[in-house]
Amino acid sequence: MRLTKFTDYSLRVLMYAAMHEDRLVTIEETAEINAISRAHVKKVVMSLTRQGYLRGQRGRSGGFTLAMHPSQINLGKLIRQTEPDFRLVECLGPDNACALTPVCRLPRMMKRALAAFVAVFDAHTLADAITGKVTL
Amino acid sequence: MRLTKFTDYSLRVLMYAAMHEDRLVTIEETAEINAISRAHVKKVVMSLTRQGYLRGQRGRSGGFTLAMHPSQINLGKLIRQTEPDFRLVECLGPDNACALTPVCRLPRMMKRALAAFVAVFDAHTLADAITGKVTL
Repeated sequence: MRLTKFTDYSLRVLMYAAMHEDRLVTIEETAEINAISRAHVKKVVMSLTRQGYLRGQRGRSGGFTLAMHPSQINLGKLIRQTEPDFRLVECLGPDNACALTPVCRLPRMMKRALAAFVAVFDAHTLADAITGKVTL
Repeated sequence: MRLTKFTDYSLRVLMYAAMHEDRLVTIEETAEINAISRAHVKKVVMSLTRQGYLRGQRGRSGGFTLAMHPSQINLGKLIRQTEPDFRLVECLGPDNACALTPVCRLPRMMKRALAAFVAVFDAHTLADAITGKVTL
């Protein structure tokens, strides 16, 4: 079971920005420190900006910064936005063709398990994810 | 977030066998009713037999059947066996290169969320997953 790379990278980008709240950070340094391609970071930053988590500043000395305090970024809400879906198994998706569906109670278990999973993140913000500002 | 197809198919194979406890079922019929390739079903059946969930009978009128009562098959234990790993994000795997790891509290949240997820299945057996014997 995995979360998408997009969620993984979104969390890292936000954490890195949160660790450097006092200045703009750049796509280049975020890519370098995380050993992620510049293209991936750019895509994630654009998406997080669109969703209101980051604020960008164009230009030569531009970059991005958190658009809100880390304590205002709920992690459950975030991963619901960054994960394309939570279709753990086929029957939770729109193209379900499983013949067992009419007699199967697994979907409700899957949904309960998923709710229990996301609830842990619902109870935390980005501020809880970082131990403090550090030099990275 | 997804479970592997291998887990999905393992659950279906076991459920189908549980619905027909009174006879041997075949790879062919399981493949057909579930619209899964014969090769996939065979791989899953071999693995579940190796793990002691199924018992096979060779020969012309052969097939497989549950090796134990559905109420003895714990779903949490099962998905721990069928999922290759639960490395939700890079830092939970052996090749973690994330630079934020020393200052990051996400791994413990991820592990807690995962434990909450699997706990739902730990509380249920295959018997809970089926509503009864039906004609399929």
